[in-house]
Amino acid sequence: MTNGHHLDVIFLGGLGEVGKNLLVLACGEDLIVIDAGIGFPEEEMLGVDLLLPDLTYLRENAHRVRGIFITHGHEDHIGALAYLLEVVQAPVYSTLLTQGLLKARLRERKVLDRADLRLIVPEEDPRIRAGCFTVECFRVSHSIPDAVGFAIETPVGLVVHTGDFKFDQTPVDGRLTDMGKLAELGRRQPLLLISDCVHVEMPGATPSERVVEQTFDDVMRRAPGRVIVATFASALSRVQQVLTTAHRHGRRVACVGRSLQSNVRVALELGYLDPPDGTLIRAAQAAKLSPEQVVYVCTGSQGEPMAVLSRIARGEHREISIQPGDTVVISATPIPGNEAAVYRLIDRLFQQGADVVYSARAAVHVSGHASQDELRMMLNLVRPRFVLPYHGEPRHLHLYADLAREVGIPDDRIMIGKVGEVFRFDGETATVAGRVPSGTVYVDGLSLGEAGDSTLVERRLLARDGVLLVVVTIDRASGHVVAGPEIIGRGFLPDGVGALFLSAAREHLSRALGQNGHTHHGRLAATRTIQEMVQSFVYQQTRRRPVILPLVMEV
Amino acid sequence: MTNGHHLDVIFLGGLGEVGKNLLVLACGEDLIVIDAGIGFPEEEMLGVDLLLPDLTYLRENAHRVRGIFITHGHEDHIGALAYLLEVVQAPVYSTLLTQGLLKARLRERKVLDRADLRLIVPEEDPRIRAGCFTVECFRVSHSIPDAVGFAIETPVGLVVHTGDFKFDQTPVDGRLTDMGKLAELGRRQPLLLISDCVHVEMPGATPSERVVEQTFDDVMRRAPGRVIVATFASALSRVQQVLTTAHRHGRRVACVGRSLQSNVRVALELGYLDPPDGTLIRAAQAAKLSPEQVVYVCTGSQGEPMAVLSRIARGEHREISIQPGDTVVISATPIPGNEAAVYRLIDRLFQQGADVVYSARAAVHVSGHASQDELRMMLNLVRPRFVLPYHGEPRHLHLYADLAREVGIPDDRIMIGKVGEVFRFDGETATVAGRVPSGTVYVDGLSLGEAGDSTLVERRLLARDGVLLVVVTIDRASGHVVAGPEIIGRGFLPDGVGALFLSAAREHLSRALGQNGHTHHGRLAATRTIQEMVQSFVYQQTRRRPVILPLVMEV
Repeated sequence: MTNGHHLDVIFLGGLGEVGKNLLVLACGEDLIVIDAGIGFPEEEMLGVDLLLPDLTYLRENAHRVRGIFITHGHEDHIGALAYLLEVVQAPVYSTLLTQGLLKARLRERKVLDRADLRLIVPEEDPRIRAGCFTVECFRVSHSIPDAVGFAIETPVGLVVHTGDFKFDQTPVDGRLTDMGKLAELGRRQPLLLISDCVHVEMPGATPSERVVEQTFDDVMRRAPGRVIVATFASALSRVQQVLTTAHRHGRRVACVGRSLQSNVRVALELGYLDPPDGTLIRAAQAAKLSPEQVVYVCTGSQGEPMAVLSRIARGEHREISIQPGDTVVISATPIPGNEAAVYRLIDRLFQQGADVVYSARAAVHVSGHASQDELRMMLNLVRPRFVLPYHGEPRHLHLYADLAREVGIPDDRIMIGKVGEVFRFDGETATVAGRVPSGTVYVDGLSLGEAGDSTLVERRLLARDGVLLVVVTIDRASGHVVAGPEIIGRGFLPDGVGALFLSAAREHLSRALGQNGHTHHGRLAATRTIQEMVQSFVYQQTRRRPVILPLVMEV
Repeated sequence: MTNGHHLDVIFLGGLGEVGKNLLVLACGEDLIVIDAGIGFPEEEMLGVDLLLPDLTYLRENAHRVRGIFITHGHEDHIGALAYLLEVVQAPVYSTLLTQGLLKARLRERKVLDRADLRLIVPEEDPRIRAGCFTVECFRVSHSIPDAVGFAIETPVGLVVHTGDFKFDQTPVDGRLTDMGKLAELGRRQPLLLISDCVHVEMPGATPSERVVEQTFDDVMRRAPGRVIVATFASALSRVQQVLTTAHRHGRRVACVGRSLQSNVRVALELGYLDPPDGTLIRAAQAAKLSPEQVVYVCTGSQGEPMAVLSRIARGEHREISIQPGDTVVISATPIPGNEAAVYRLIDRLFQQGADVVYSARAAVHVSGHASQDELRMMLNLVRPRFVLPYHGEPRHLHLYADLAREVGIPDDRIMIGKVGEVFRFDGETATVAGRVPSGTVYVDGLSLGEAGDSTLVERRLLARDGVLLVVVTIDRASGHVVAGPEIIGRGFLPDGVGALFLSAAREHLSRALGQNGHTHHGRLAATRTIQEMVQSFVYQQTRRRPVILPLVMEV
């Protein structure tokens, strides 16, 4: 079966982690990329704005890239494309809505001009040649319209990549996961299935997006005043359901928030949103209607501090503040790590007098990803020789392995891996053939520089016990202290006791410097001595370890 | 019905928040306290070790306190008692196990000697006089043995305080919530029910603690090697279940971790744990047995970085490291805010080769608190005129209000409140009669000082974009800069680009100081100018706002 070729499958992101999906398939001199997404920082990554996959490997192999294929328009699949196109020149293939959404991102980063965007229409069953690869696509249902998976014919066998999917039997846009195509792919004896696995913790099947419509219907009918629906900026199916149900109850809908409005604009232009006549209005118009005629859709369902709903809850939003009779629907479940922020938000809204409908009270959200039965169904349709679960954290990969075993995939054909590992297939066997440069690039602020791991470590240390700044000015010639020591603290002790303690520390240091004449040994030695002296004094007295910044100036 | 008396109900903690339960009932010159617990810091309260209720009100009214009544031995109900007893002299009433557990805490804080501890035995149906109050108690089932609620006869009517409860029909210790006593209290036309409400988001009834035993049984039977069960240090019923099932499968059990061992020791001494012969062993003994004979119980189910399981997962535990064949059971669900840490822990254990059984895979945990049907049942048994839900965040209070309405309590008799509010009852009406001093005291490190809100704000700022220290030494007489400016950063930009940027900032500042002669206006003015100049330069160039610490030294 082997023909001398081999296929390398390399995740630069999205394997053993959720977010920043970026997959590379390499064979001979050809290479294709599937998705180029960003990740979002966890709470402990202080001050970091977004996470990018390390693109070193693609920079070094830019000349080999024959095409970039995008599964759907979520940020964790398209958000890094602008950065990728600074490194790689290759056509970008996607469906219409995905193209509209990624155009907006490329325009923001000012790289739209140099992008070679190509449309794929699944119904035309396109076969795209990209070097030695031939790429087909198939529709999948997900929480955003126009999502696809890819089937890639390679010199060593057929690879099926599910993209993010579920088997929603009543999707909002009416487009089902293409089971016929998947069954056909299954008959072609695929070498490898690369499967979404992030929702593998859930038994059974994920409910249809339609389930949420029933909740919207109940809320819009019963709410005495305005309804405010918070969801993800990219949840366009959710927006369609709000429009449909609002219209049914004589309400109009205003979208609030820049990213949401931008996505809605793209979807309207391309025909992916179908608002009943006159239903979609501006916030300024909504403000003139009586409350029971109004629905707002906004972002902030994850408690993000700067998103619209959080600003409303804090009373800091320019246009909207909570009034008696308002009903807020949190149409999302918290992403792990966001729970505390989301519950704080819900509590604050209750305290302001809103009625809050959230996951504990009604079906306000369903996942866009397949649960256990659907994952088994995908395996049974595609019947691959090897399977490689992606888009999950380590626990998801391991639970998926259990499930693959259940449907008969032998243990040694279930590939559990990490970002950067090279999975090598020769048609018969699969091995891990080394690693390529990979990891996470932290983008921070204006990305003048990217915050490295050490910067994050420093911020965590600063956050733990604060910082003490210790300054002494010495005479260069004599080594005598001519000013200071001064000690300033931030985030260390509260003002009163802090001032007392710092003055004691200053006296201690002053005495020590006078006695030992440490300053005679030059600036560097003096700096180190001061650091050690202050550190041990502070620890003895307070059992804390603030960051100590010593500075010796010479005159 | 009013007799000129009035009863004040004041929560100094535990109302509209989970944790640091401390309730005061005041009538005339008499005052009693129910529970004195600590709270646990959220992730964003950087560096804080624990949260105490503000005791100012009790300090000012210490002479009026006639008794302290403790419902059960969890930290959020007993952890602040040592601090309370520094302020108040009064007898402390509790059941036997609760007394054993709180003795250990008082011994640690060296206040055991001055504590007047009194035992209550619910079966003896004690009636304790405490000033104008008469206090009875009744057993409730919870996740720790020997828990009670209190019924307090006051001059204006009967108050029933549930404590933390559920209606477990098969509790591990065989002691049921005393429905007969509750029904009897209900016949006495209670004025007020103070009810646990923290699990009100859950429909139906909370499953029995026994449910977990089935999972333990499955795991102990099937696990090829060692079993490591992580749970709360206070989960003594869980420990009993591990002992019972381990014995059934020929395994022995070692408890690892100081707080867990301390609690187990107390429970063994007082007869609240009943290990089958020879089942309970030391970790050193366990290390000599073959893996399939060993069970460890340890702390760390919440991903706490210093707890035993986290240290095992990081390979930093002295005695235990993960071996092939190990099965880890996370016998807890993450408390909101801990999810990210818990999932990181689970992922790490999988990566080390352990099989991990957690909430997504099996029934590893049940709550100790009543769900909706049980909360309704409590209301129907006690049939109070007024109801005051506690031990919940604002959303829980509001959901509980819905539920109380359902069983027929009129809206104006459902009291939704905040810490520090004085709920005043005269037998006919209930009003909010002002506030008393209240809030949270953050205890940090050695508690040399307590970290105030401002310290936490500073730490958050430091953590966001780091810190820049700017120092200039000037000649006192001439105002000329004689050394510096020097700029040092921590947690700001990564080393390479950071050094470049800081040298540019230094040059900018140096030029500006030279031109404008700002240093002529004295030290304070110079300090402010430097701060503003550096801040605006940094923001323009990087769009970040590190904390800037300017220091002007004079020689």
